[in-house]
Amino acid sequence: MRILLTLSYDGTDFCGYQIQPNGRTVEETLENALYTLTGEKIKTYASGRTDSGVHAVCQKVHFDTQSSIPPENFAPALNAILPSDVKVSKSKRVSKNFNARFSAKKKTYRYSLMIGDYEEPTVSRYKTLIKTEPNLSLMKECAKLIEGEHDFKAFMASGSSVQDTVRTVHSIKVVKKGRFIDVYVSGNGFLYNMVRIIVGAMLAVADGKATIKEIEDMLNRMERPIKVKTMPAKGLTLYSVIY
Amino acid sequence: MRILLTLSYDGTDFCGYQIQPNGRTVEETLENALYTLTGEKIKTYASGRTDSGVHAVCQKVHFDTQSSIPPENFAPALNAILPSDVKVSKSKRVSKNFNARFSAKKKTYRYSLMIGDYEEPTVSRYKTLIKTEPNLSLMKECAKLIEGEHDFKAFMASGSSVQDTVRTVHSIKVVKKGRFIDVYVSGNGFLYNMVRIIVGAMLAVADGKATIKEIEDMLNRMERPIKVKTMPAKGLTLYSVIY
Repeated sequence: MRILLTLSYDGTDFCGYQIQPNGRTVEETLENALYTLTGEKIKTYASGRTDSGVHAVCQKVHFDTQSSIPPENFAPALNAILPSDVKVSKSKRVSKNFNARFSAKKKTYRYSLMIGDYEEPTVSRYKTLIKTEPNLSLMKECAKLIEGEHDFKAFMASGSSVQDTVRTVHSIKVVKKGRFIDVYVSGNGFLYNMVRIIVGAMLAVADGKATIKEIEDMLNRMERPIKVKTMPAKGLTLYSVIY
Repeated sequence: MRILLTLSYDGTDFCGYQIQPNGRTVEETLENALYTLTGEKIKTYASGRTDSGVHAVCQKVHFDTQSSIPPENFAPALNAILPSDVKVSKSKRVSKNFNARFSAKKKTYRYSLMIGDYEEPTVSRYKTLIKTEPNLSLMKECAKLIEGEHDFKAFMASGSSVQDTVRTVHSIKVVKKGRFIDVYVSGNGFLYNMVRIIVGAMLAVADGKATIKEIEDMLNRMERPIKVKTMPAKGLTLYSVIY
């Protein structure tokens, strides 16, 4: 049978989602726990790979198993084995046609910022420090421009080999609460580092370092201006995946 | 001159606030940073000592110095020296009569709970897991009873040597958001473990394990029923100190 897991993890001490020769990964940690539980060498498939240091509150992962464990029991059984920085919030049976990656209709990432002179210790694992209060209406103006279907080639990490770089960003929401800002970016799919570069572009515009025109040029497959930074991984959280 | 610092810390990797022979403490970490900055052996005085594992977003600490560093510059200068789990959000000069502990008029602690079967990795450092949804109106009924001036002897950790155990709890607020509950307890002072036992009492009542009458008895200096637990340290945060 095919099982779908909903996963939460604190990415701080993981070298990203995907298994790699050296370094602790979410994928390997999960597959080791599945092996302990079922005795099967199970290959898992995630909705997408998150980078080193990126968190998730709603990663989706499917796998096939011969086990007779009731589907809903995988969550508590795995949680008894998994370390404290990765847990399963839900497990259920899905059809053999379901694919955690290819069946996804919409994914939302949250990018979290804290404004100030210092990194607040109780949130610094999950938020990126910015020194000055950004102009919120400029951030939102930039967000409006990025929403929609575009060729996001200039919003992709250099060295990435993806050919089709057209993606649709359904919405970008900016929520400010005191000295904290959360940016929610929803889309049908994302290129490597795309959300971190989108937020970098929004902040470059908000701080007056880049113009709206330069971001328009980025969307027309032009080069990325050096003023537009890739924001650090730790502020990014995979927030939801809709099927 | 006398300086007042506002301190934030993640208590997870500290053996509490107060200096002790073995173990990393907030006090020693701060005094070491002050020594690096000023060359003086400075003794600091906090609004209160937090236990091992307890966090703070607004601890207040005063100290005297001969240094000519402008008062407001202590915050950024100390932050450049301090580790990432303790930071200074503000520094200012206060009069020689001011005392971070004895001048305090009101202190508020926040106790944070998460409801569910598993510890959500991105919040588990700061919230305590409870398995079932507590009855919120019973929690609030218990809170109402505890508010006011009482002899809180039965709400103090055993082995504590404090003689005067009368304290005033100004207010207890319960805020629920989804599967998270925050309990804010404000008072003129707190006995050892008092907030953690107050929340333990509220949950014992909410879960039907203790009666309102038993909590009334606790407030009349009776014994603490074994059903009333001391809640774990990690859910507790020193939230504000008002002078």
